[in-house]
Amino acid sequence: MTRGRFITIEGGEGVGKTTNVDLVRQVLEEHGCDVLTTREPGGTPLAEEIRAVLLGPRDEVVDPMAETLLVFAARAQHVATVIEPALIAGRWVLCERFTDSTFAYQAGGRGVDAQVVAQLAEYAHPGLWPDLTLYLDAPPEAAMPRIAKRSLDRFERERQAFFERVRQAYATRARDELQIVRIDAGRELAAVQRDIVGAVKRFLVARDDP
Amino acid sequence: MTRGRFITIEGGEGVGKTTNVDLVRQVLEEHGCDVLTTREPGGTPLAEEIRAVLLGPRDEVVDPMAETLLVFAARAQHVATVIEPALIAGRWVLCERFTDSTFAYQAGGRGVDAQVVAQLAEYAHPGLWPDLTLYLDAPPEAAMPRIAKRSLDRFERERQAFFERVRQAYATRARDELQIVRIDAGRELAAVQRDIVGAVKRFLVARDDP
Repeated sequence: MTRGRFITIEGGEGVGKTTNVDLVRQVLEEHGCDVLTTREPGGTPLAEEIRAVLLGPRDEVVDPMAETLLVFAARAQHVATVIEPALIAGRWVLCERFTDSTFAYQAGGRGVDAQVVAQLAEYAHPGLWPDLTLYLDAPPEAAMPRIAKRSLDRFERERQAFFERVRQAYATRARDELQIVRIDAGRELAAVQRDIVGAVKRFLVARDDP
Repeated sequence: MTRGRFITIEGGEGVGKTTNVDLVRQVLEEHGCDVLTTREPGGTPLAEEIRAVLLGPRDEVVDPMAETLLVFAARAQHVATVIEPALIAGRWVLCERFTDSTFAYQAGGRGVDAQVVAQLAEYAHPGLWPDLTLYLDAPPEAAMPRIAKRSLDRFERERQAFFERVRQAYATRARDELQIVRIDAGRELAAVQRDIVGAVKRFLVARDDP
């Protein structure tokens, strides 16, 4: 059994991650891949409980390290019980948000040391990194109107400066990590989706080459 | 303002930790200390939510690293928002369970690398370790009848071999860490409490010496 591939979709609030998961799945399935789609934080009953603890608005100030450890607790459970077993079984896993979100939100946004995030990643998912990451990038001011109608979670309630730091941290990751493909998500949907399909197809071709 | 001292009470299930917190508090208060008592996992609204996630019985197998990260997430929040501010304000903090429990349950019981636990401790509570730890030690078979009437949590439902590993890990900590005082909790309560009072008073005298 050939191990499946692990693809993640990343980006700030309101850039269209959820919308485009279905598109990527469709491209992969047309190529003959057996695809499992999932999301973070969450993806298992325990991890979804942690998601609720993380995202619920609260009066208590949340310590940045506590937040980071919570994120990785959910991720360790998700990887151990869902993602790794699927990959081992030959399925492709398509996940909305993964550790790049933690570099962006907890390191970039909250100021946790990025080297600590990297060490925690090794504890939570030893040896597992995405084979391809689609990073949907748009300026916060372009994306915020798209989430204005939602009931905002604890992160979506943050201020502009927070989202600028998150975006900057994503940009740094996209520059340093070869598996990350930046998609300009500030354009009309058709153009964004054309680029997403192109990136996925290039990945599939490269993989099929001898 | 003189920084307060940090005292923890440790031990397996049913050894009398909760019962003896009040006793220790009384001895400290008679000595003129302003005491804050708290417990882990928990101690803040967020950390108590994590406690519920940790302790609730569930069908899902919980990944040992996920469990460990959850414990430290609750601890980071507890330390940052309750324990450190109290110590800085000169209060003495008396806490039921702390990181020695993680060495015992997650390293000893679940098999997580003790060096990983030590690294996570440095992330969750940099520079903070108990000044005195009272370790109530009793064989699991002596303690289990005491919890038999409770509605058992996810840890209390473990098997005998798990509790033996937990006790062994506590014994190793007690051997290696000078601040840990082992109390034989397998005896009648009066004898146990005489030893607890003695240990606390020796700590207070040592502290008052020039």
